This record gives sequence, C-alpha cells and structure tokens, in this order.
Amino acid sequence: MREGDSLDHFFLGPKGELRRFFKEVVELVVDDYIFWRRNYHPKDPPAIPYRQLQSDGAEAYRGRFNQELFALISDLKLDVPFFSPRYMAHMVSEVAMPGLVAYLATMLYNPNNVSLEAAPVTVRFELEVGRQFAELFGYKTAESFCHLCSGGTIANFESLWFNRAGRFLPLTIALACHHEKVEAPAELPTTLWQLLNVSTQQTGRLYAEFQDRCRARELDAHTLFRRWSLDAYGDADYRDLVRDHFGETYSSPVVLMPRSAHYSWKRAAALLGLGRRNLLPVAVDDGFHMDPVDYRACLRRCYEERRPVIQSVFVLGTTEFGSVDPLPELLAVRDQARETGLDSPVHVDAAYGGYFATIFQAADGRSPESVESSWLQPLRQACAALPATESVTVDPHKMGYAPYGAGALVIRHGFLRRLVAEGAPYALDTRGIGHEDLGKFILEGSKPGAVAAAVLFNHRMMPLDSGGYGRHLLDLCRLAQDFYDRVTRLNASGHERHQRFQILPLARPETNVVCLLVLPASALSLAAVDRLNDQVALRFGVREVASVQSYDYLVSKTRIATNAPFITADQRLSALESDCDELTCLRLVFMNRWAEGKTADRIDYLDDFLGILSEHVEALLARKPQPDVGADNVIA
Amino acid sequence: MREGDSLDHFFLGPKGELRRFFKEVVELVVDDYIFWRRNYHPKDPPAIPYRQLQSDGAEAYRGRFNQELFALISDLKLDVPFFSPRYMAHMVSEVAMPGLVAYLATMLYNPNNVSLEAAPVTVRFELEVGRQFAELFGYKTAESFCHLCSGGTIANFESLWFNRAGRFLPLTIALACHHEKVEAPAELPTTLWQLLNVSTQQTGRLYAEFQDRCRARELDAHTLFRRWSLDAYGDADYRDLVRDHFGETYSSPVVLMPRSAHYSWKRAAALLGLGRRNLLPVAVDDGFHMDPVDYRACLRRCYEERRPVIQSVFVLGTTEFGSVDPLPELLAVRDQARETGLDSPVHVDAAYGGYFATIFQAADGRSPESVESSWLQPLRQACAALPATESVTVDPHKMGYAPYGAGALVIRHGFLRRLVAEGAPYALDTRGIGHEDLGKFILEGSKPGAVAAAVLFNHRMMPLDSGGYGRHLLDLCRLAQDFYDRVTRLNASGHERHQRFQILPLARPETNVVCLLVLPASALSLAAVDRLNDQVALRFGVREVASVQSYDYLVSKTRIATNAPFITADQRLSALESDCDELTCLRLVFMNRWAEGKTADRIDYLDDFLGILSEHVEALLARKPQPDVGADNVIA
Repeated sequence: MREGDSLDHFFLGPKGELRRFFKEVVELVVDDYIFWRRNYHPKDPPAIPYRQLQSDGAEAYRGRFNQELFALISDLKLDVPFFSPRYMAHMVSEVAMPGLVAYLATMLYNPNNVSLEAAPVTVRFELEVGRQFAELFGYKTAESFCHLCSGGTIANFESLWFNRAGRFLPLTIALACHHEKVEAPAELPTTLWQLLNVSTQQTGRLYAEFQDRCRARELDAHTLFRRWSLDAYGDADYRDLVRDHFGETYSSPVVLMPRSAHYSWKRAAALLGLGRRNLLPVAVDDGFHMDPVDYRACLRRCYEERRPVIQSVFVLGTTEFGSVDPLPELLAVRDQARETGLDSPVHVDAAYGGYFATIFQAADGRSPESVESSWLQPLRQACAALPATESVTVDPHKMGYAPYGAGALVIRHGFLRRLVAEGAPYALDTRGIGHEDLGKFILEGSKPGAVAAAVLFNHRMMPLDSGGYGRHLLDLCRLAQDFYDRVTRLNASGHERHQRFQILPLARPETNVVCLLVLPASALSLAAVDRLNDQVALRFGVREVASVQSYDYLVSKTRIATNAPFITADQRLSALESDCDELTCLRLVFMNRWAEGKTADRIDYLDDFLGILSEHVEALLARKPQPDVGADNVIA
Repeated sequence: MREGDSLDHFFLGPKGELRRFFKEVVELVVDDYIFWRRNYHPKDPPAIPYRQLQSDGAEAYRGRFNQELFALISDLKLDVPFFSPRYMAHMVSEVAMPGLVAYLATMLYNPNNVSLEAAPVTVRFELEVGRQFAELFGYKTAESFCHLCSGGTIANFESLWFNRAGRFLPLTIALACHHEKVEAPAELPTTLWQLLNVSTQQTGRLYAEFQDRCRARELDAHTLFRRWSLDAYGDADYRDLVRDHFGETYSSPVVLMPRSAHYSWKRAAALLGLGRRNLLPVAVDDGFHMDPVDYRACLRRCYEERRPVIQSVFVLGTTEFGSVDPLPELLAVRDQARETGLDSPVHVDAAYGGYFATIFQAADGRSPESVESSWLQPLRQACAALPATESVTVDPHKMGYAPYGAGALVIRHGFLRRLVAEGAPYALDTRGIGHEDLGKFILEGSKPGAVAAAVLFNHRMMPLDSGGYGRHLLDLCRLAQDFYDRVTRLNASGHERHQRFQILPLARPETNVVCLLVLPASALSLAAVDRLNDQVALRFGVREVASVQSYDYLVSKTRIATNAPFITADQRLSALESDCDELTCLRLVFMNRWAEGKTADRIDYLDDFLGILSEHVEALLARKPQPDVGADNVIA
C-alpha cells in the first residue's frame, strides 16, 4: 500500500475515506452560493415570507419531498458499484472529487456555455480547457480551436463536419471566384481532383487569400463561401453544380477507419448523408491495430477511383481492447499518398486514450519518468505523432474522471470553425462583452457550463502531465500489465485445473484494458467456446439483482469477429471448427487505482477474481451443455 | 404576496429562503451515498489507510484544494444572477430544487444512460420521463418513443434523422423487394412519387408486412433494409440507384419551416447533407406566426417540382418572441396536401413551449382551471393539435427548470427508431437484464443518467398538469400579460416623457415573452431607431462588470428583419426611412415567479424597471447622436 500518495486524494475513495473533507467542501460551496444570492440587491425583501416557510403547506411539501427523495435514492442503490476496486468492467469509475465539487458548485449558478451572455465565467473555463488539450496534443494554441461537447460521439460527428467543410473549401473558392467574378487565389489548383486534395494547412492559406481578394472588391468572403459551399447545396446538387462547371464531377467522398473503430462512425456516416457504404474499413492486425499496408492499399483505391477522402480516422485507445493504432506508420502512408496527389486529413479518435498522452508530458520542467518498458512504446509513439494530425476527440468523462457528459474536440486548423458558423439573432452577438460566442461554431446549443468547470478543476488538481494524470494513468497501465502477467502465470502454473482450460489474454495490453478468452481443452468448435465465454460473461455482468451485494466482481464483455487476425493467427483457435461469426470474450478495464489492493482475507483482488473465475469455469464445464443460455442459468 | 403556495417551495428562492431545507437534503443525499459505498463488501479494508488521511501530504493536498476551490467559486460570483426577479432576459432562471438535488444525488453514482449495463436505474427513469411526455402531447405511449438528449438542438437533428429514415422507407422496401426477390407488401405504391409520399403511419404498416414477408423467406428484414437504405448510400448515390430502377429519380428533398425558426435548423440542414438551400422558409405574419397561406403555396411548389418533403417544422414557442404557430390551420393544410398526393411529416419544435401544454392537462381527475382569456387561445389550440403531429422537441432545461443539458425528442411512430439502430459489440446487448439499450437508437453515446433523475424528480414534485407546472406557467403567462398592459398604459399615460418616445410592445404575448421597441418621436429612420434600441440593450445586457451589483435589471435583445410584417404593417414604423436590414429590440422572458414582487421601496419590480428604462432613454435622447456605439458609451 502506498503511503501519502497525493493522487489517492483525488477520489472520495472506495469506502468514502475522504468523507469528512468532501462534506466540508460541499457545505462551503452551498453556503457560499446561497449568500451570493443574498448579497445581490440585499435590500430586496425575501420573496417567500418567513412565516410561509413554517406554514402547513410548506411542511406538507417538505414531507412529500423527503418521501419522494427517499424513493429516488433507494432506487439509485441498485445502481452499479463503479467506485469499487471490484468493478473492472466498462470505462467508468467514480468521478474525481474536484470535478464533482466543481460541477455541483457551478450547477447552482446554472451557466449555459452556448454564449458568454449566459456564461461569462465558464465559457472562459471552456476555452482554457481547450488550450490545455491543444498543448497536450502538440497543436499551436493560437491557431487551433477546441471546445467541449456532450461526449465523444458528438465530437466525432463534428470532426467530420469540420473536415468535410475544409475538404471542399478550395472547390468552393473556385466556384465562388468564377460565379462572383473574384480573382482566384494565385495558388488555387485548377483541376477538380487537385481542388479536392489540398492539405488543410494550404487550404487555410487559400482562404486567407480569397478573403483578401473579396475585401478588395468590397464583398463579404463568408457570404460568398456560404453561397457556393457544399453545405448550401447538399451532396447530390453540388455534384451537378460541379459537373456544370468542370464538365466532370467527383465520386462519393469516403472516410477511412480501422475495422476496430467505434460503432458511432457508422451512425456518423448515415447522419451526415455520406452513406455507410462510403466508410472504408481498413484491416487490423492480430493486436487490433489498423494495418498500414492495408491503409496504403485503401488510399491507392481511392486515388484510382478518384474518390476524395474526407478524413482518415486512427484510433488511440480502442473502446474494445484499449489498443493503439501505429500513428507514425499510418501518417507516413498518408504523407506518401499526398506526394502522389491524394490528401487525407487525419482525425484521431482518442475519446478513450487522449489522456494517456499526459504520461509523456514533462511536469514543472522535470522530464517525465523514463519508462522504457516495451509495452509502452506504441502509446508513446502514437502520442508523439499527434501534432501532425488534423483533429482529436478526447472524452474527459472517460480517463479524465469528469462527470458525464464531457467530450471534447480539438482541431488543429482553427479557421475551419468559421466555415460552419451560424448566428442567432437573440444571442451569439456579444459586443457588450467583446468575445465571439461558442454557440456559433459547435453542433450543440445550450450546454452546461458546469462541465467546463468540472474538467478545469480536475486539471488544476491533477495536471495534464507526468506528475498528475500521467502518473495515475501509468499506474493503471502497469496494473493491466500485472494482471496480464498473473493470467499468463496461471496458465503456466501446471495446476490440474488449467490443463482443462486456459484463460487466454487477447494481446498484451497497450493501455489499461485486458480482454480474456476462456478456452477449454475439450472444445471442438468456436461456437462452443463462444457459449462458454458468454455464460461466464453473464456471471460477471450486470444483472437484475435485489441488491448490489450480489456482485462480487464485475467485468464486461465484447465480441470479436471469428475472421479477425487474432483468431485466425492463433494456433489453438484456428484449429477449432469455425462455426460462428463472432466470439464473446471478457473485457476488463482498470480505472480504479485500488484494484491492486487486497480483500479482508489479504488476498489480492486480482487473484481473488481469477480464482472465482476459474471455479466458475470448472463448474460450467462440469455441467451438461445447455442449448441456450439466459440469465436464469447463471450460477451465482 | 401569495400565502403558502406550494409552487414557491419548488425553488431555493431569490434570497435562498429554503436554505435550511436545501442543506438538510444535500447532507442526507451525500451521507446516504457514502454509506452505500461502505455497505458494499463492508469487510473490504479501506483503500486509503486512516493515518494517511492525516499525513502531511494529505494536509497539503487539502490546502491546495481549498485554495483552488476558493478561486473557482470566486470566479463564479461574476456569473449572471439568473435566480433574481431582476433577471428578465433569456430563457434561464434558477434550477428547480428537486432537479438540482436529484442531479447531485445521481451524479455521485455516475450512471451512463447509453446502456442499462451502465445505468440500470436511470435508463428506466428516462423511459418513464419519455412516457410522461408522450402522454402530455397526446401520443400513444406504447407506440411512441421518447428519450432525453443534451438539448433541443440535438433533438431537432434527431427529428430529421428519424423522419428522413421514415420518408425513404417505402422506397427502400421497394428496392429491397426487387433486388432480394422478396414479395412486395400488398399496399406498397408503385410509382416513385407515391413511394416518397406515404404517411408515417402507413409506412409502419408496410414495414410490418415487409418483415413478415422476409421472415417467410428466412431473411432478416433489418439487414435488407440497411442494405438498400438511403443511409447506406448517401443522397447522391441513392439517386443514381433509384434512377437505375425507376428510370427517373427524385429531386432534392426539402424541409419546410417558418422564417422565425431557430438558427439550429440551418445547421441541421448542413450537417445532414440536405443543403441549406433545401430549407424552404415559410412567411410569418405580423405576430411572428407561420402563415398557413404561404405554407400551402410552399407545399404546392414542392408538389409541382416533385420534391419530397422530409418534414415540416412548426414552432410552439419561438425562442425570440414566445409566439405559437397556428398548428390546427397548418395541420389542415398538410392534410389537404396529403389528399393531393403530397405527404409531409410534421415536427413541432417545442423546445421552449412544450411544457406549456401542462396548462391544459387535468390534474387528478380535476379539469384544468378554465382560462378563457383570448390571449391564451393560440396556445390552447396548438397544444390540442399535438396528437396529430409526428414528433416534438421539448427542453426540460428551459421551462422544465432542469439543469443543463436536458433536451428530449418524442416521436409518435416509435418504429422509426429501429431504422437508425446501430449496435456496439462491447455493450448495447443486455440479455443479462433483458432490455433493449437506448444507445442503439439515439445520436449520442455516453450520457449522464443524472439528467433523467433530475427531470423525473422535477416532474414528481411538480406534475405535468394544471395543478403543477401548468399552474406555475400560467402564472408566468399572466405576468407577461400584466407587463404588456403596464407598457401599454405607460404609453397612454400622457406623461410628457412618453410624448417624446413610446415603448412599443411587439405583439401581445402568447406565452411569457415580451419584446419591446423604443420609438422616439424624433426618429426619421429605422437605423436611428435601431441605434437607440441597441444602446438601451447594451445598458441592460450582460457586460464586463467588476461585480454583479452593477446590474439593476437584466433584459436581452433580439433583432428583427425590417421587412418583417410586424414592421411593414405598423403605421409608425413603416413611415420611417427603411435604411437598415435589421432592428434591435428588447426581449424580456418571465421565468421567475417573483418578478411580480416589490423592491424594498415597495415599488413593483416591473414598474421600477420601466422607470429606469424610461429615464435611460431620456438620457440617451438628450445626448448628441453617437457615430458608433460600444460598451464604453453605455450610461451606467
């Protein structure tokens, strides 16, 4: 057990260890707020007369409130014990105490970060958080744009929205110059394909020049841009417009991403009208990484078919395996394609993994602890490559331990935000306070300022460097390695039990996620393996329970395609009959720093879990096979 | 002053009148939660040893926490005093106490409503809230689908996403039947135009029949649907596919909405790839209502140009004026168009106004108070027409007094959700708890369960009927009428001052918003009127202040186009030179039930504000005209 580690105090603790302190600050926050109210026009009389507070009606209301509150908080007790070191399931844990307290404090004031008028304080907090992320990912803070949104899914939608606007900007400039009789920027390409393959950086320069030329003719560049943009026409009509002008038009734009990408990308393609068929999945290797060789082949195909690439998505920390795509190699492939005339903006979906970049950030001038372990190198290299990408999604409500919903999008070329700007007559015009409003540039409208305060306060108490978040997250990665090693040792232990079945980890973890597959020696087919793992997953999953006491350990599950390289490349698995499309496996996410602790019987939680898991597998193997498995069949 | 009105206790009160009670319940909630933690595997030892809590490191951490917290809550004190009856600006007020307490209580548990696995309790809360809204709007709860999202903007995006999927479903069925050799449903139309004009209700029946026919051939209807849907191809490729099949294709689909609709609709059209040009704005009358005559003309044009209508948007409570579109007349126009073969689903943007429907809901079997005032009739009629619409957006974080971000989308034909469903391998599959997961059917991913608890608890303490929200909101509407009458009396008072300028209300309020235009007798041009009103708006707007004490009253502003019927139909305004495109006016939203109260000097807040406003206008008129106005020129 560590002594006096300041990171421990970041959380309330599994037993509410910091209870007194938490209650003290909550009380302070509430009192401070209430007396702020009282100090605004102090002489205004109370709105509710004192005697009314003692009236029968008031008494009755309070009684009803307490009764309903009792019902509410009793219901909540059937929620999942995310706070416990025994919860190792999804990417969720307890919220960090600073974020919790800041959320509460700010929610009292009720600011709305759509506009400075509705949130003069917390919009600034949001911009400060944005600068922090831009620095963390190596973007120039003055040129980039970052804002918070309700979650990574929305941030991913926005990446497409911004990058699509950028992708089509040179073409829009060409059309606008032609139709509005503005002189075209000197470096504006002339062929359609070239216009659709200008790098975002160069696009920024072209737009600046276009603005100059419009000014010279006393025209408003933004108005002209909007008139001739893809967003004005929609894809189908725009293709016709382009055909009228160029005598040819473009083929369906595509988005490239690894097969392991989050399901929300399919939704994004449908939502934005791109079509799911125009999402090109890139193969992954047996470690669940996007394969640079297949990425090159995909880009090549786009080039041959003359299909513009809106963006390529690389994943830094997959939701399923915590795996990290090889950004340096993938970026090199992108750069080579650029040489041949095909450009692709790169978006990094680091909703999960973005905070891991803090591991490699120097704290207070001190270099980060040198971590030479080979398992950390993919993460280190991916983080180091971020400055060369175009945009990053990161979710403070995942590894940032902020309350939901806190996502963020960081875009390197901040000028893109102007391309999507919309204004509202009743707001978003703040000459009184002299700033541009966020609401103009983001998908969402009204949104809680409390999120910005929570994220900022978390970052103040646990900085985005190797002394703060970095140290904590490195601890968690090591915990995952430790667990991986324990599983490996277990299999090699020669214990009779582990001759009957093995517990196979799926690839060495690159962050803090470990996936396991229970493989019985007796299994003949993948379907049989799937059934067994499904039963195990139900045993350790969230169920209809009468009390949370029913849970000893909680882990989650995921499903992998049986044609995935991990399975086809594995000797034991590929030897089995392949009679199903997908295989359930167990998934453990380590977000609780105390999972390395011990039970009251002085057994490590990790070993205790592995013991219970093994016993359960034995019991299942001893039973007759079941035709179908439901919650009823779970051995509790 | 009312005595013992239970609605008063719904809020903490402008002076924190309910402070003791609030603190009592906050303490209860926190203790109850912490001891829930302690009662989960009680024997697990504390993770942080007690002596560590007293260590120097812990002490230092707490010191730093308090110091940073002091900075945070001091910053927040420059936030806007939304809680005060002196704040009559935007659609924001203090959060209701039940919602606040429930949000805090639930945030501690940190549920994520993307999935029952991550929120077994609060997903059910969300579905309960959904049923409440469905009932309020007159939809059948069993057939409809409602969920919460981060705000009305996202809900509006979703309305388009769902209704677009429904619009194209019959066409998709036709393509799927042809290509997959499935027998077409008996009533499936055969021409392209007919396929794009099937009512949503009938579409549901066709889909059910399609599913039956697929089952008969042992095919999965959803897979076939996805394969041949618009979402798979994107608009441009789909038009080509349709052309190959029908020998003709469809013209750009449109969305109709009043000119007064929220700016986010433009963003929606751009985001979804529809193109802003395909948003057809319908004219509004001098009371800012969508004009049924022009709506008919627009639908006629769509019919003639063979353009499918994805949806028509009617607004129940515009953000700018609180005005209510004449739903019965508009729906009659839609129904007539249907007879001629053009169908349009109707979406109601009631982000702001949805809660006003509670005014007309019977409470506990008692009929709602009969309110015969003529000003209330547009609202009453619009609410009564809701059951005939296809979907409604409503924002609990507006007139529901819930914390941000709480929006909701209610769709009448719940089967549409299946058309957009996506699954995630690691979640959204909950056989263990036997429910379908929300995350499959909504745009967002991870999202706070605390929102659902807050909204539900608000609704429990203040029901969605004429005894709860309805009574409160009717009070606010009456307050707006009262204010309107005071302004009218002031103009007619014969006071010398009001011969120099008039304070013109823009239309009698239909909800709780009043817009004002200060009109000096000396003005010769609209630009001069605009300048004056802009100066006044700056005076009462949010500014860079050193203390909130600088604000005596806060009101907001909006801008109206000078070619709007309100201006062109007004004798005095239309007589002025029309030398600008837009006119600033003041906008007051009454959300605070104590705005009807009095200052310490026993002056009504409303009169006090009008007095200060009039004095300020006099002072401005006495000054030399300023070429340009910035914050520096404000007379404080």
